[in-house]
Amino acid sequence: MIYADNAATTQLDIDAFETMKRFLLNDFGNASQPYSFSRAAKKALKEARTTIAECIGASPEEIFFTSGGTESDNWAIKGLMTYGDERATITSKIEHHAVLNACAAVEKMGFPVAYLPVNQYGVVLPETLSETITSNTKLVSIMFVNNEIGTIEPIQQLAQIAHAHGALFHTDAVQAVGHIPINVNSLGIDMLSASGHKFNAPKGVGFLYIRKGVDIHPYADGGAQEHGMRAGTENVAAIVAMAVALKKNCDNMQAAQRKLQQMEEEFIQIVDESGIDYIRNGSETRIPGNINISIKGADGEMLLHRLDLKGICISTGSACDSVNTQVSHVIEAIGVQEAYAAGTIRVSFGATNCENDAKMVAESIVNILTL
Amino acid sequence: MIYADNAATTQLDIDAFETMKRFLLNDFGNASQPYSFSRAAKKALKEARTTIAECIGASPEEIFFTSGGTESDNWAIKGLMTYGDERATITSKIEHHAVLNACAAVEKMGFPVAYLPVNQYGVVLPETLSETITSNTKLVSIMFVNNEIGTIEPIQQLAQIAHAHGALFHTDAVQAVGHIPINVNSLGIDMLSASGHKFNAPKGVGFLYIRKGVDIHPYADGGAQEHGMRAGTENVAAIVAMAVALKKNCDNMQAAQRKLQQMEEEFIQIVDESGIDYIRNGSETRIPGNINISIKGADGEMLLHRLDLKGICISTGSACDSVNTQVSHVIEAIGVQEAYAAGTIRVSFGATNCENDAKMVAESIVNILTL
Repeated sequence: MIYADNAATTQLDIDAFETMKRFLLNDFGNASQPYSFSRAAKKALKEARTTIAECIGASPEEIFFTSGGTESDNWAIKGLMTYGDERATITSKIEHHAVLNACAAVEKMGFPVAYLPVNQYGVVLPETLSETITSNTKLVSIMFVNNEIGTIEPIQQLAQIAHAHGALFHTDAVQAVGHIPINVNSLGIDMLSASGHKFNAPKGVGFLYIRKGVDIHPYADGGAQEHGMRAGTENVAAIVAMAVALKKNCDNMQAAQRKLQQMEEEFIQIVDESGIDYIRNGSETRIPGNINISIKGADGEMLLHRLDLKGICISTGSACDSVNTQVSHVIEAIGVQEAYAAGTIRVSFGATNCENDAKMVAESIVNILTL
Repeated sequence: MIYADNAATTQLDIDAFETMKRFLLNDFGNASQPYSFSRAAKKALKEARTTIAECIGASPEEIFFTSGGTESDNWAIKGLMTYGDERATITSKIEHHAVLNACAAVEKMGFPVAYLPVNQYGVVLPETLSETITSNTKLVSIMFVNNEIGTIEPIQQLAQIAHAHGALFHTDAVQAVGHIPINVNSLGIDMLSASGHKFNAPKGVGFLYIRKGVDIHPYADGGAQEHGMRAGTENVAAIVAMAVALKKNCDNMQAAQRKLQQMEEEFIQIVDESGIDYIRNGSETRIPGNINISIKGADGEMLLHRLDLKGICISTGSACDSVNTQVSHVIEAIGVQEAYAAGTIRVSFGATNCENDAKMVAESIVNILTL
């Protein structure tokens, strides 16, 4: 099998697994208990918080563990809403559904939300934000990297504009964390969402970075865990595994990027040489490993299934759930022409791919379309 | 080490771990993806839902996976609240903080909440509910088993009273699921919260049973997972492990209960024979394995640390977090006399204890207090 759907989920890192195993089977104590047996869990939790904070340039007390990216996004967006303070939220049309649907929910509660358009490369232009933002804006939430087309957004500039108008800046960085360098301070990020399973950590764990001083409601009420902001017995095994995987990804980032860029180049070369009529979606400033192409006259769905028969896993559309199969909101927002749009596929390589995978996937696509 | 704090968390069942391992390392596909590789995850998720439903007499489509008991409680309580419908919630004074603090949060949002007192055994008397409930009550939320003193509440009668007044009935069954027989239909439960790590499943996973037809808001907005009610990539490994652990616990329930009751008897006999002046808290109708005692003139905290030095893990107070150390709200609510209250400890045996553990723990307590 060739797994080329790393934007959907990744394989658990083996060191992360070994760490997890220890806290699942041996040091399983409740991290909030006072006896010595729980000390290992408590210590590991503390170290994990520090490791993760360091990976994004934050302080440990600004890291709040959650059950994943969706929870982090929901918390960041809904947690700021307070009745009596009906200032607006600004987001973009190409966000993940976790952000879009959390925004739809706060709109339903009576809080105004504006959805910014993007250019043909999927970039939220700073000038577009400048035209929309007012002193009545409370939150700007723009994703760090688009999950379909891989475009890296101009986070620093967008955050600056938000701050200049007295608004907070949140970013759904689920596709960015562990893959490209991030420093929340130099970028001016106030809140950042991350999901473990997108960087070789387990599913069911993530975190929300909340800059010190940001006034946000707790997400879950109950025990005093996570400084009283997110109650619930700490998922120690998964949290510690997340720290291991993130640190490993960050330490290997440059080498991984080079490998992924080479794979992209090889892939594109093969498709180019085949004479297939296609567009590559996204901007030049793109997350390494993402190849989103729209092929004229092709059927993305059919392509996915034909590749599946060859043991190759890729995606079409936004691909985080299998219920919606129409042309995705991202492909629509960047204005891909109708003749190409239905033939959109996303190939996403990751840490566990070997270099031959790019060649194999590209050749298989070409074979299916030209033979 | 003797681990006698199973009400705080339990050791992961080894079969549950093996199942988990498979979905962490091998069948790691995103369960919402359409290719064959994800089929194993999708199938396992479906089977887990059915298994868990069967364990509590529900239908699979009534089981919604969450990140644990706290999330389930928060969802059940906050998810029912709708502005424009300010009907009241009734709960008890001895609920877990996940329920108490979720109720405090909805109160702050303007929804009324009443907190019922309990009798000296920690029982929420049906007549107390009858006196408080009106046609203006929307939700009654009473725990199935108290986490400190083990009292099993008269769920069926309480649910009947709720229904007779047009209210819904939720139960925080975190301490009950996997330990005593539960049938949501015969008991008349509309919503039920459960937490995996209380029945030898991993931490970070749980479920909320929601009876078909209950009108509740989604807990997390985003993808279409969990019928659009709880978005987020499914934590397949933990969910499937939870099903394995729950089924195993349910299959072995009678034998486990007998073993635990024998352990309790042995423990109590040793303490009785020592002549220590103590009260056993909770009612006769109590979860097997729970021994909560208040010892005259003793210091629960000191006892915990002295036992810790002997390698024995037990709890004092409500013990789900280490921040609050005063006499717990439960011990206060059942009216334990001051001379005894500070000397309260909770010993909770579970599936992984061997029969000698009861003797060892009891003798250690007696030695510390009498030598």
